[in-house]
Amino acid sequence: MSAFRDALATRYGQALGAPVSSPVWQSAMAHPVIESMLGHRSVRAYRPDPVSDAQMAAILAAAQSAATSSNLQTWSVVAVRDPARKSRLAEYANNQAHIRECPVLLVWLADLSRLDRVGERVGVPAQANDYLEMFLVAVVDAALAAQNAAVAAEALGLGTVYIGAMRNRPEDVARELGLPPHVFAVFGLCLGHPDPARPASVKPRLDPSVILHQERYGVGAEAEGAEVSRYDQVMRAFQASQQMPAVDWSSQSATRVKGPESLSGRDRLKQAIQALGFRLD
Amino acid sequence: MSAFRDALATRYGQALGAPVSSPVWQSAMAHPVIESMLGHRSVRAYRPDPVSDAQMAAILAAAQSAATSSNLQTWSVVAVRDPARKSRLAEYANNQAHIRECPVLLVWLADLSRLDRVGERVGVPAQANDYLEMFLVAVVDAALAAQNAAVAAEALGLGTVYIGAMRNRPEDVARELGLPPHVFAVFGLCLGHPDPARPASVKPRLDPSVILHQERYGVGAEAEGAEVSRYDQVMRAFQASQQMPAVDWSSQSATRVKGPESLSGRDRLKQAIQALGFRLD
Repeated sequence: MSAFRDALATRYGQALGAPVSSPVWQSAMAHPVIESMLGHRSVRAYRPDPVSDAQMAAILAAAQSAATSSNLQTWSVVAVRDPARKSRLAEYANNQAHIRECPVLLVWLADLSRLDRVGERVGVPAQANDYLEMFLVAVVDAALAAQNAAVAAEALGLGTVYIGAMRNRPEDVARELGLPPHVFAVFGLCLGHPDPARPASVKPRLDPSVILHQERYGVGAEAEGAEVSRYDQVMRAFQASQQMPAVDWSSQSATRVKGPESLSGRDRLKQAIQALGFRLD
Repeated sequence: MSAFRDALATRYGQALGAPVSSPVWQSAMAHPVIESMLGHRSVRAYRPDPVSDAQMAAILAAAQSAATSSNLQTWSVVAVRDPARKSRLAEYANNQAHIRECPVLLVWLADLSRLDRVGERVGVPAQANDYLEMFLVAVVDAALAAQNAAVAAEALGLGTVYIGAMRNRPEDVARELGLPPHVFAVFGLCLGHPDPARPASVKPRLDPSVILHQERYGVGAEAEGAEVSRYDQVMRAFQASQQMPAVDWSSQSATRVKGPESLSGRDRLKQAIQALGFRLD
Protein backbone atom coordinates (compact mmCIF):
# COMPACT_ATOMS: atom_id res chain seq x y z
CA MET A 1 0.00 0.00 0.00
CA SER A 2 2.74 2.45 0.90
CA ALA A 3 4.69 1.32 -2.20
CA PHE A 4 1.62 2.25 -4.26
CA ARG A 5 1.49 5.73 -2.61
CA ASP A 6 5.19 6.18 -3.39
CA ALA A 7 4.65 5.15 -7.01
CA LEU A 8 1.82 7.68 -7.36
CA ALA A 9 3.86 10.44 -5.75
CA THR A 10 6.75 9.73 -8.13
CA ARG A 11 4.48 9.68 -11.18
CA TYR A 12 3.09 13.12 -10.33
CA GLY A 13 6.33 14.64 -9.05
CA GLN A 14 5.33 15.01 -5.44
CA ALA A 15 8.29 12.81 -4.54
CA LEU A 16 10.49 15.65 -5.83
CA GLY A 17 9.01 17.99 -3.25
CA ALA A 18 6.79 19.60 -5.85
CA PRO A 19 3.29 20.49 -4.70
CA VAL A 20 0.50 18.62 -6.48
CA SER A 21 -2.80 20.42 -6.83
CA SER A 22 -5.32 17.66 -7.47
CA PRO A 23 -6.53 15.96 -4.33
CA VAL A 24 -8.33 13.31 -6.38
CA TRP A 25 -5.42 11.00 -7.11
CA GLN A 26 -4.51 10.84 -3.44
CA SER A 27 -7.48 8.53 -2.97
CA ALA A 28 -6.47 6.24 -5.82
CA MET A 29 -7.23 2.57 -5.38
CA ALA A 30 -4.08 0.48 -4.97
CA HIS A 31 -3.49 -2.59 -7.15
CA PRO A 32 -0.28 -4.45 -8.05
CA VAL A 33 -0.99 -4.37 -11.81
CA ILE A 34 -1.48 -0.60 -11.68
CA GLU A 35 1.56 -0.17 -9.45
CA SER A 36 3.58 -1.99 -12.11
CA MET A 37 2.30 0.48 -14.75
CA LEU A 38 2.98 3.49 -12.51
CA GLY A 39 6.61 2.42 -12.39
CA HIS A 40 7.07 2.66 -16.17
CA ARG A 41 10.21 4.39 -17.33
CA SER A 42 11.80 4.48 -20.79
CA VAL A 43 14.96 2.34 -20.81
CA ARG A 44 17.77 3.41 -23.13
CA ALA A 45 20.61 1.28 -21.66
CA TYR A 46 20.55 -2.50 -22.07
CA ARG A 47 22.62 -5.52 -21.15
CA PRO A 48 23.43 -7.76 -24.13
CA ASP A 49 21.53 -10.80 -22.73
CA PRO A 50 18.90 -12.07 -25.17
CA VAL A 51 15.14 -12.00 -24.69
CA SER A 52 14.04 -15.64 -24.53
CA ASP A 53 11.52 -17.28 -26.84
CA ALA A 54 9.30 -17.93 -23.82
CA GLN A 55 9.34 -14.22 -22.92
CA MET A 56 8.59 -13.23 -26.53
CA ALA A 57 5.69 -15.69 -26.71
CA ALA A 58 4.12 -14.25 -23.55
CA ILE A 59 4.64 -10.68 -24.77
CA LEU A 60 3.05 -11.48 -28.13
CA ALA A 61 0.08 -13.23 -26.51
CA ALA A 62 -0.45 -10.14 -24.34
CA ALA A 63 -0.26 -7.94 -27.45
CA GLN A 64 -2.80 -10.08 -29.28
CA SER A 65 -5.10 -9.86 -26.25
CA ALA A 66 -5.59 -6.12 -26.70
CA ALA A 67 -8.83 -4.99 -28.27
CA THR A 68 -8.81 -4.73 -32.08
CA SER A 69 -11.40 -2.89 -34.15
CA SER A 70 -14.11 -5.33 -35.35
CA ASN A 71 -11.60 -8.14 -34.63
CA LEU A 72 -9.91 -7.21 -37.94
CA GLN A 73 -6.42 -7.54 -36.34
CA THR A 74 -4.91 -4.99 -38.72
CA TRP A 75 -1.41 -5.10 -37.27
CA SER A 76 1.78 -7.13 -37.40
CA VAL A 77 5.14 -6.86 -35.68
CA VAL A 78 8.68 -7.59 -36.86
CA ALA A 79 11.28 -8.75 -34.32
CA VAL A 80 14.72 -7.56 -35.43
CA ARG A 81 17.74 -9.12 -33.72
CA ASP A 82 20.37 -9.05 -36.49
CA PRO A 83 23.00 -6.46 -35.43
CA ALA A 84 23.57 -5.22 -38.99
CA ARG A 85 19.87 -4.71 -39.62
CA LYS A 86 19.39 -3.00 -36.25
CA SER A 87 22.30 -0.75 -37.08
CA ARG A 88 20.74 0.27 -40.40
CA LEU A 89 17.40 0.91 -38.70
CA ALA A 90 19.19 2.99 -36.05
CA GLU A 91 20.72 5.04 -38.85
CA TYR A 92 17.25 5.69 -40.26
CA ALA A 93 16.08 6.73 -36.78
CA ASN A 94 18.44 9.58 -35.99
CA ASN A 95 21.19 7.18 -34.86
CA GLN A 96 19.68 6.34 -31.49
CA ALA A 97 22.32 4.20 -29.79
CA HIS A 98 19.83 2.12 -27.79
CA ILE A 99 18.48 0.61 -31.03
CA ARG A 100 21.92 -0.93 -31.59
CA GLU A 101 22.29 -1.87 -27.92
CA CYS A 102 18.96 -3.60 -27.24
CA PRO A 103 18.87 -7.31 -28.11
CA VAL A 104 15.50 -7.02 -29.91
CA LEU A 105 13.86 -4.16 -31.75
CA LEU A 106 10.14 -4.71 -32.27
CA VAL A 107 8.78 -2.74 -35.23
CA TRP A 108 5.02 -2.31 -34.97
CA LEU A 109 3.14 -2.29 -38.24
CA ALA A 110 -0.19 -0.82 -39.26
CA ASP A 111 -0.98 -3.72 -41.61
CA LEU A 112 -3.90 -3.55 -44.05
CA SER A 113 -2.18 -5.92 -46.47
CA ARG A 114 -3.54 -9.00 -44.69
CA LEU A 115 -7.08 -7.79 -45.42
CA ASP A 116 -6.05 -7.22 -49.03
CA ARG A 117 -5.00 -10.88 -49.23
CA VAL A 118 -8.11 -12.10 -47.39
CA GLY A 119 -10.24 -10.07 -49.79
CA GLU A 120 -8.50 -11.62 -52.79
CA ARG A 121 -9.03 -15.13 -51.44
CA VAL A 122 -12.76 -14.62 -50.87
CA GLY A 123 -13.25 -12.52 -54.01
CA VAL A 124 -14.25 -9.28 -52.27
CA PRO A 125 -11.57 -6.60 -52.86
CA ALA A 126 -10.82 -4.52 -49.73
CA GLN A 127 -11.55 -1.14 -51.27
CA ALA A 128 -12.16 0.58 -47.93
CA ASN A 129 -8.41 0.21 -47.31
CA ASP A 130 -8.01 3.34 -49.44
CA TYR A 131 -9.59 5.52 -46.72
CA LEU A 132 -7.96 7.46 -43.88
CA GLU A 133 -10.37 5.66 -41.52
CA MET A 134 -8.84 2.25 -42.23
CA PHE A 135 -5.33 3.67 -41.90
CA LEU A 136 -6.34 5.02 -38.46
CA VAL A 137 -7.90 1.70 -37.48
CA ALA A 138 -4.60 -0.02 -38.23
CA VAL A 139 -2.52 2.60 -36.39
CA VAL A 140 -4.74 2.32 -33.30
CA ASP A 141 -4.74 -1.50 -33.46
CA ALA A 142 -0.93 -1.46 -33.57
CA ALA A 143 -0.70 1.01 -30.68
CA LEU A 144 -3.06 -0.93 -28.40
CA ALA A 145 -1.17 -4.15 -29.09
CA ALA A 146 2.22 -2.51 -28.54
CA GLN A 147 1.15 -1.03 -25.22
CA ASN A 148 0.03 -4.43 -23.95
CA ALA A 149 3.41 -5.77 -25.08
CA ALA A 150 5.24 -3.00 -23.21
CA VAL A 151 3.26 -3.64 -20.00
CA ALA A 152 3.88 -7.38 -20.34
CA ALA A 153 7.60 -6.87 -20.94
CA GLU A 154 7.93 -4.70 -17.83
CA ALA A 155 6.02 -7.27 -15.77
CA LEU A 156 8.66 -9.81 -16.85
CA GLY A 157 11.44 -7.47 -15.67
CA LEU A 158 12.40 -6.26 -19.13
CA GLY A 159 12.75 -2.64 -20.24
CA THR A 160 11.35 -0.84 -23.27
CA VAL A 161 11.49 2.49 -25.10
CA TYR A 162 9.28 3.57 -27.98
CA ILE A 163 11.04 4.79 -31.12
CA GLY A 164 8.90 7.40 -32.89
CA ALA A 165 11.90 8.17 -35.09
CA MET A 166 11.03 4.99 -36.99
CA ARG A 167 8.82 7.45 -38.93
CA ASN A 168 11.75 9.67 -39.99
CA ARG A 169 12.39 7.67 -43.19
CA PRO A 170 9.38 5.37 -43.71
CA GLU A 171 10.30 4.17 -47.21
CA ASP A 172 13.79 3.13 -46.07
CA VAL A 173 12.34 1.25 -43.10
CA ALA A 174 9.79 -0.45 -45.40
CA ARG A 175 12.54 -1.52 -47.81
CA GLU A 176 14.72 -2.85 -44.98
CA LEU A 177 11.86 -4.91 -43.56
CA GLY A 178 10.44 -6.01 -46.92
CA LEU A 179 7.03 -4.53 -46.22
CA PRO A 180 4.36 -5.05 -48.89
CA PRO A 181 2.06 -2.17 -49.92
CA HIS A 182 -0.49 -1.09 -47.28
CA VAL A 183 1.95 -1.71 -44.41
CA PHE A 184 3.44 1.17 -42.40
CA ALA A 185 5.93 1.00 -39.51
CA VAL A 186 4.19 3.18 -36.89
CA PHE A 187 6.99 3.05 -34.31
CA GLY A 188 9.69 0.82 -32.89
CA LEU A 189 9.97 -0.59 -29.38
CA CYS A 190 13.37 -1.54 -27.98
CA LEU A 191 13.22 -4.58 -25.74
CA GLY A 192 15.83 -6.01 -23.40
CA HIS A 193 17.23 -6.38 -19.92
CA PRO A 194 17.85 -2.95 -18.37
CA ASP A 195 21.47 -2.29 -17.48
CA PRO A 196 21.44 -1.76 -13.69
CA ALA A 197 24.61 0.33 -13.96
CA ARG A 198 22.73 2.96 -16.01
CA PRO A 199 19.27 3.08 -14.42
CA ALA A 200 16.35 5.07 -15.83
CA SER A 201 13.94 7.15 -13.75
CA VAL A 202 10.18 7.63 -13.75
CA LYS A 203 9.31 10.91 -15.49
CA PRO A 204 6.61 13.01 -13.80
CA ARG A 205 3.47 13.88 -15.74
CA LEU A 206 1.07 16.82 -15.86
CA ASP A 207 -1.42 17.15 -13.04
CA PRO A 208 -4.48 14.97 -13.73
CA SER A 209 -6.75 18.03 -13.52
CA VAL A 210 -5.33 19.13 -16.89
CA ILE A 211 -5.87 15.75 -18.57
CA LEU A 212 -9.22 14.54 -17.24
CA HIS A 213 -12.34 16.53 -18.12
CA GLN A 214 -15.79 16.01 -16.62
CA GLU A 215 -18.72 15.85 -19.04
CA ARG A 216 -17.26 18.45 -21.44
CA TYR A 217 -13.81 19.72 -22.37
CA GLY A 218 -13.54 22.20 -19.55
CA VAL A 219 -10.05 23.30 -18.64
CA GLY A 220 -10.05 27.08 -18.41
CA ALA A 221 -6.96 28.59 -20.08
CA GLU A 222 -6.03 30.35 -16.84
CA ALA A 223 -6.28 27.28 -14.60
CA GLU A 224 -4.37 25.28 -17.19
CA GLY A 225 -1.67 27.94 -17.40
CA ALA A 226 -1.19 27.78 -13.64
CA GLU A 227 -0.93 23.99 -13.74
CA VAL A 228 1.54 24.05 -16.61
CA SER A 229 3.70 26.60 -14.74
CA ARG A 230 3.64 24.32 -11.72
CA TYR A 231 4.61 21.38 -13.96
CA ASP A 232 7.51 23.40 -15.39
CA GLN A 233 8.81 23.54 -11.79
CA VAL A 234 8.20 19.80 -11.29
CA MET A 235 10.22 19.07 -14.41
CA ARG A 236 13.02 21.41 -13.31
CA ALA A 237 13.23 19.50 -10.01
CA PHE A 238 13.29 16.24 -12.01
CA GLN A 239 16.03 17.54 -14.30
CA ALA A 240 18.10 18.62 -11.28
CA SER A 241 17.72 15.15 -9.75
CA GLN A 242 18.99 13.62 -13.03
CA GLN A 243 21.85 16.06 -13.64
CA MET A 244 20.07 17.10 -16.82
CA PRO A 245 20.14 20.65 -18.22
CA ALA A 246 17.34 22.78 -16.77
CA VAL A 247 14.63 23.76 -19.25
CA ASP A 248 10.94 24.50 -18.81
CA TRP A 249 8.65 21.81 -20.21
CA SER A 250 6.67 24.65 -21.81
CA SER A 251 9.65 25.99 -23.76
CA GLN A 252 10.94 22.55 -24.66
CA SER A 253 7.55 21.41 -25.92
CA ALA A 254 6.85 24.60 -27.85
CA THR A 255 10.23 24.27 -29.56
CA ARG A 256 9.49 20.62 -30.39
CA VAL A 257 6.41 21.67 -32.42
CA LYS A 258 7.65 25.02 -33.68
CA GLY A 259 7.39 24.14 -37.34
CA PRO A 260 8.09 21.60 -40.09
CA GLU A 261 11.85 21.88 -39.46
CA SER A 262 11.29 20.52 -35.91
CA LEU A 263 9.85 17.23 -37.19
CA SER A 264 13.09 15.38 -38.14
CA GLY A 265 11.88 14.83 -41.68
CA ARG A 266 8.41 13.80 -40.65
CA ASP A 267 6.90 16.90 -42.24
CA ARG A 268 6.79 14.73 -45.37
CA LEU A 269 5.08 11.82 -43.62
CA LYS A 270 1.90 12.11 -45.68
CA GLN A 271 3.79 11.71 -48.95
CA ALA A 272 5.77 8.80 -47.47
CA ILE A 273 2.64 6.99 -46.31
CA GLN A 274 1.01 7.52 -49.70
CA ALA A 275 4.16 6.13 -51.35
CA LEU A 276 3.62 2.99 -49.23
CA GLY A 277 0.26 2.47 -50.95
CA PHE A 278 -2.19 4.17 -48.59
CA ARG A 279 -4.38 6.65 -50.44
CA LEU A 280 -5.68 8.26 -47.22
CA ASP A 281 -8.93 9.23 -48.98
CA MET B 1 0.58 -21.94 -13.89
CA SER B 2 -2.23 -24.14 -15.14
CA ALA B 3 -4.56 -21.10 -15.09
CA PHE B 4 -2.02 -19.34 -17.33
CA ARG B 5 -2.00 -22.32 -19.75
CA ASP B 6 -5.80 -22.23 -19.82
CA ALA B 7 -5.79 -18.49 -20.53
CA LEU B 8 -3.36 -18.98 -23.43
CA ALA B 9 -5.38 -21.86 -24.84
CA THR B 10 -8.54 -19.75 -24.71
CA ARG B 11 -6.85 -16.77 -26.34
CA TYR B 12 -5.72 -18.89 -29.29
CA GLY B 13 -8.83 -21.03 -29.53
CA GLN B 14 -7.27 -24.32 -28.53
CA ALA B 15 -9.76 -24.50 -25.67
CA LEU B 16 -12.44 -24.85 -28.36
CA GLY B 17 -10.77 -28.00 -29.61
CA ALA B 18 -9.22 -26.15 -32.53
CA PRO B 19 -5.68 -27.15 -33.44
CA VAL B 20 -3.08 -24.41 -33.03
CA SER B 21 -0.13 -24.55 -35.37
CA SER B 22 2.54 -22.47 -33.61
CA PRO B 23 4.48 -24.38 -31.02
CA VAL B 24 6.17 -21.19 -29.81
CA TRP B 25 3.43 -19.84 -27.56
CA GLN B 26 3.16 -23.15 -25.75
CA SER B 27 6.41 -22.28 -24.00
CA ALA B 28 5.17 -18.82 -22.95
CA MET B 29 6.42 -17.53 -19.62
CA ALA B 30 3.63 -17.29 -17.04
CA HIS B 31 3.01 -14.06 -15.13
CA PRO B 32 -0.08 -12.80 -13.28
CA VAL B 33 -0.06 -9.40 -15.06
CA ILE B 34 0.05 -11.12 -18.45
CA GLU B 35 -2.59 -13.64 -17.35
CA SER B 36 -4.83 -10.69 -16.52
CA MET B 37 -4.31 -9.26 -20.03
CA LEU B 38 -4.91 -12.68 -21.66
CA GLY B 39 -8.34 -12.71 -20.03
CA HIS B 40 -9.49 -9.51 -21.75
CA ARG B 41 -12.94 -9.58 -23.23
CA SER B 42 -15.11 -6.71 -24.48
CA VAL B 43 -17.96 -6.09 -22.05
CA ARG B 44 -21.24 -4.81 -23.48
CA ALA B 45 -23.53 -5.50 -20.47
CA TYR B 46 -23.12 -3.45 -17.30
CA ARG B 47 -24.65 -3.17 -13.86
CA PRO B 48 -25.75 0.40 -12.96
CA ASP B 49 -23.29 0.71 -10.01
CA PRO B 50 -21.01 3.74 -10.37
CA VAL B 51 -17.25 3.69 -10.90
CA SER B 52 -15.75 5.26 -7.76
CA ASP B 53 -13.51 8.33 -7.71
CA ALA B 54 -10.74 6.16 -6.26
CA GLN B 55 -11.03 3.74 -9.18
CA MET B 56 -11.05 6.60 -11.71
CA ALA B 57 -7.96 8.15 -10.10
CA ALA B 58 -6.04 4.88 -10.33
CA ILE B 59 -7.15 4.32 -13.93
CA LEU B 60 -6.10 7.85 -14.90
CA ALA B 61 -2.71 7.51 -13.20
CA ALA B 62 -2.15 4.27 -15.12
CA ALA B 63 -3.11 6.03 -18.36
CA GLN B 64 -0.72 8.88 -17.65
CA SER B 65 2.05 6.35 -16.98
CA ALA B 66 2.03 5.14 -20.58
CA ALA B 67 4.81 6.41 -22.82
CA THR B 68 4.08 9.66 -24.65
CA SER B 69 6.05 10.97 -27.62
CA SER B 70 8.76 13.43 -26.41
CA ASN B 71 6.73 13.76 -23.18
CA LEU B 72 4.39 16.09 -25.10
CA GLN B 73 1.31 14.43 -23.52
CA THR B 74 -0.86 15.25 -26.53
CA TRP B 75 -4.03 13.63 -25.22
CA SER B 76 -6.94 14.29 -22.91
CA VAL B 77 -9.97 12.30 -21.84
CA VAL B 78 -13.55 13.28 -21.06
CA ALA B 79 -15.52 11.24 -18.51
CA VAL B 80 -19.22 11.33 -19.44
CA ARG B 81 -21.71 10.15 -16.80
CA ASP B 82 -24.77 12.30 -17.57
CA PRO B 83 -27.42 9.93 -18.98
CA ALA B 84 -28.77 12.48 -21.47
CA ARG B 85 -25.29 13.21 -22.83
CA LYS B 86 -24.42 9.51 -23.02
CA SER B 87 -27.67 8.95 -24.87
CA ARG B 88 -26.84 11.62 -27.44
CA LEU B 89 -23.34 10.19 -27.88
CA ALA B 90 -24.85 6.72 -28.30
CA GLU B 91 -27.07 8.12 -31.04
CA TYR B 92 -23.98 9.49 -32.81
CA ALA B 93 -22.34 6.05 -32.47
CA ASN B 94 -24.83 3.84 -34.26
CA ASN B 95 -27.06 3.59 -31.16
CA GLN B 96 -24.89 1.13 -29.29
CA ALA B 97 -26.96 0.26 -26.20
CA HIS B 98 -23.93 -0.31 -23.93
CA ILE B 99 -23.02 3.39 -24.20
CA ARG B 100 -26.31 4.19 -22.46
CA GLU B 101 -25.93 1.30 -20.03
CA CYS B 102 -22.37 1.83 -18.78
CA PRO B 103 -22.02 4.25 -15.84
CA VAL B 104 -19.07 6.09 -17.45
CA LEU B 105 -18.11 6.64 -21.05
CA LEU B 106 -14.50 7.76 -21.44
CA VAL B 107 -13.90 9.66 -24.68
CA TRP B 108 -10.21 9.64 -25.62
CA LEU B 109 -8.96 12.76 -27.34
CA ALA B 110 -6.04 13.38 -29.65
CA ASP B 111 -5.36 16.84 -28.20
CA LEU B 112 -2.95 19.25 -29.88
CA SER B 113 -4.80 22.27 -28.50
CA ARG B 114 -2.82 22.20 -25.25
CA LEU B 115 0.38 22.69 -27.24
CA ASP B 116 -1.32 25.56 -29.09
CA ARG B 117 -1.99 27.22 -25.74
CA VAL B 118 1.50 26.48 -24.42
CA GLY B 119 2.97 27.96 -27.60
CA GLU B 120 0.88 31.11 -27.19
CA ARG B 121 2.03 31.52 -23.60
CA VAL B 122 5.73 31.20 -24.45
CA GLY B 123 5.43 33.10 -27.74
CA VAL B 124 6.36 30.22 -30.05
CA PRO B 125 3.34 29.28 -32.22
CA ALA B 126 2.92 25.51 -32.63
CA GLN B 127 3.00 25.44 -36.42
CA ALA B 128 4.00 21.78 -36.64
CA ASN B 129 0.48 20.97 -35.39
CA ASP B 130 -0.62 21.44 -39.01
CA TYR B 131 1.15 18.25 -40.07
CA LEU B 132 -0.15 14.67 -40.32
CA GLU B 133 2.81 13.63 -38.14
CA MET B 134 1.57 15.60 -35.14
CA PHE B 135 -1.95 14.30 -35.65
CA LEU B 136 -0.52 10.76 -35.58
CA VAL B 137 1.56 11.54 -32.48
CA ALA B 138 -1.62 12.59 -30.69
CA VAL B 139 -3.63 9.57 -31.90
CA VAL B 140 -0.89 7.19 -30.73
CA ASP B 141 -0.49 9.01 -27.39
CA ALA B 142 -4.24 8.69 -26.81
CA ALA B 143 -4.24 4.99 -27.76
CA LEU B 144 -1.31 4.08 -25.48
CA ALA B 145 -2.93 5.92 -22.57
CA ALA B 146 -6.33 4.33 -23.21
CA GLN B 147 -4.87 0.83 -23.32
CA ASN B 148 -3.18 1.33 -19.95
CA ALA B 149 -6.54 2.56 -18.65
CA ALA B 150 -8.29 -0.53 -20.01
CA VAL B 151 -5.74 -2.87 -18.43
CA ALA B 152 -5.98 -0.98 -15.12
CA ALA B 153 -9.78 -1.09 -15.18
CA GLU B 154 -9.80 -4.85 -15.76
CA ALA B 155 -7.30 -5.33 -12.94
CA LEU B 156 -9.80 -3.55 -10.66
CA GLY B 157 -12.55 -5.93 -11.76
CA LEU B 158 -14.24 -3.49 -14.14
CA GLY B 159 -15.15 -4.15 -17.76
CA THR B 160 -14.52 -2.10 -20.89
CA VAL B 161 -15.35 -1.96 -24.58
CA TYR B 162 -13.81 0.37 -27.15
CA ILE B 163 -16.21 2.43 -29.26
CA GLY B 164 -14.72 3.08 -32.69
CA ALA B 165 -18.13 4.37 -33.78
CA MET B 166 -17.26 7.56 -31.90
CA ARG B 167 -15.71 8.44 -35.30
CA ASN B 168 -19.01 8.07 -37.21
CA ARG B 169 -19.97 11.74 -36.67
CA PRO B 170 -16.87 13.55 -35.35
CA GLU B 171 -18.25 17.09 -35.61
CA ASP B 172 -21.36 16.17 -33.59
CA VAL B 173 -19.20 14.52 -30.92
CA ALA B 174 -16.93 17.59 -30.82
CA ARG B 175 -19.92 19.91 -30.39
CA GLU B 176 -21.42 17.73 -27.65
CA LEU B 177 -18.13 17.70 -25.71
CA GLY B 178 -17.22 21.34 -26.38
CA LEU B 179 -13.92 20.43 -28.02
CA PRO B 180 -11.70 23.32 -29.16
CA PRO B 181 -9.96 23.21 -32.56
CA HIS B 182 -7.12 20.65 -32.84
CA VAL B 183 -8.93 18.12 -30.65
CA PHE B 184 -10.36 14.89 -32.11
CA ALA B 185 -12.27 12.13 -30.31
CA VAL B 186 -10.36 9.03 -31.45
CA PHE B 187 -12.62 6.48 -29.77
CA GLY B 188 -14.76 5.91 -26.70
CA LEU B 189 -14.28 3.38 -23.92
CA CYS B 190 -17.25 2.18 -21.88
CA LEU B 191 -16.37 1.55 -18.27
CA GLY B 192 -18.36 -0.17 -15.54
CA HIS B 193 -19.08 -3.28 -13.52
CA PRO B 194 -19.80 -6.24 -15.81
CA ASP B 195 -23.25 -7.74 -15.40
CA PRO B 196 -22.60 -11.33 -14.26
CA ALA B 197 -25.98 -12.35 -15.69
CA ARG B 198 -24.80 -11.49 -19.21
CA PRO B 199 -21.15 -12.56 -19.25
CA ALA B 200 -18.75 -11.88 -22.13
CA SER B 201 -16.27 -14.38 -23.54
CA VAL B 202 -12.64 -14.20 -24.62
CA LYS B 203 -12.46 -14.01 -28.42
CA PRO B 204 -9.76 -16.14 -30.04
CA ARG B 205 -7.12 -14.45 -32.19
CA LEU B 206 -5.11 -15.39 -35.28
CA ASP B 207 -2.21 -17.77 -34.82
CA PRO B 208 0.90 -15.86 -33.69
CA SER B 209 2.82 -17.15 -36.74
CA VAL B 210 0.72 -14.79 -38.89
CA ILE B 211 1.32 -11.75 -36.69
CA LEU B 212 4.97 -12.02 -35.62
CA HIS B 213 7.64 -11.78 -38.30
CA GLN B 214 11.34 -12.53 -37.82
CA GLU B 215 13.80 -9.96 -39.22
CA ARG B 216 11.66 -9.15 -42.28
CA TYR B 217 7.99 -9.26 -43.20
CA GLY B 218 7.93 -12.88 -44.18
CA VAL B 219 4.57 -14.58 -44.14
CA GLY B 220 4.18 -16.45 -47.41
CA ALA B 221 0.71 -15.95 -48.91
CA GLU B 222 0.17 -19.72 -48.97
CA ALA B 223 1.14 -20.33 -45.34
CA GLU B 224 -0.97 -17.35 -44.32
CA GLY B 225 -3.93 -18.64 -46.31
CA ALA B 226 -3.73 -21.98 -44.49
CA GLU B 227 -3.57 -20.22 -41.10
CA VAL B 228 -6.51 -17.98 -41.95
CA SER B 229 -8.58 -21.00 -43.03
CA ARG B 230 -7.71 -22.66 -39.75
CA TYR B 231 -8.76 -19.48 -37.91
CA ASP B 232 -12.06 -19.44 -39.81
CA GLN B 233 -12.72 -22.82 -38.18
CA VAL B 234 -11.62 -21.56 -34.76
CA MET B 235 -14.07 -18.67 -35.06
CA ARG B 236 -16.87 -21.00 -36.18
CA ALA B 237 -16.28 -23.11 -33.08
CA PHE B 238 -16.34 -19.90 -30.99
CA GLN B 239 -19.57 -18.74 -32.63
CA ALA B 240 -21.17 -22.13 -31.97
CA SER B 241 -20.15 -21.91 -28.30
CA GLN B 242 -21.81 -18.46 -28.10
CA GLN B 243 -24.98 -19.32 -30.03
CA MET B 244 -23.89 -16.76 -32.61
CA PRO B 245 -24.62 -17.10 -36.35
CA ALA B 246 -21.84 -19.00 -38.11
CA VAL B 247 -19.73 -16.95 -40.51
CA ASP B 248 -16.12 -17.26 -41.62
CA TRP B 249 -13.85 -14.57 -40.22
CA SER B 250 -12.51 -14.16 -43.77
CA SER B 251 -15.92 -13.37 -45.26
CA GLN B 252 -16.95 -11.17 -42.36
CA SER B 253 -13.71 -9.16 -42.45
CA ALA B 254 -13.72 -8.79 -46.23
CA THR B 255 -17.30 -7.50 -46.08
CA ARG B 256 -16.33 -5.06 -43.31
CA VAL B 257 -13.76 -3.39 -45.63
CA LYS B 258 -15.58 -3.89 -48.93
CA GLY B 259 -15.86 -0.22 -49.73
CA PRO B 260 -16.74 3.28 -48.50
CA GLU B 261 -20.34 2.20 -47.84
CA SER B 262 -19.03 -0.31 -45.24
CA LEU B 263 -17.48 2.45 -43.08
CA SER B 264 -20.61 3.75 -41.27
CA GLY B 265 -19.99 7.29 -42.50
CA ARG B 266 -16.28 7.21 -41.76
CA ASP B 267 -15.44 7.40 -45.44
CA ARG B 268 -15.66 11.17 -44.85
CA LEU B 269 -13.34 11.07 -41.81
CA LYS B 270 -10.65 13.14 -43.50
CA GLN B 271 -13.01 16.03 -44.20
CA ALA B 272 -14.37 15.77 -40.63
CA ILE B 273 -10.90 15.90 -39.08
CA GLN B 274 -9.96 18.85 -41.25
CA ALA B 275 -13.17 20.58 -40.17
CA LEU B 276 -11.93 20.15 -36.58
CA GLY B 277 -8.88 22.27 -37.42
CA PHE B 278 -6.26 19.69 -38.37
CA ARG B 279 -4.71 20.48 -41.74
CA LEU B 280 -3.06 17.03 -42.05
CA ASP B 281 -0.29 18.51 -44.21
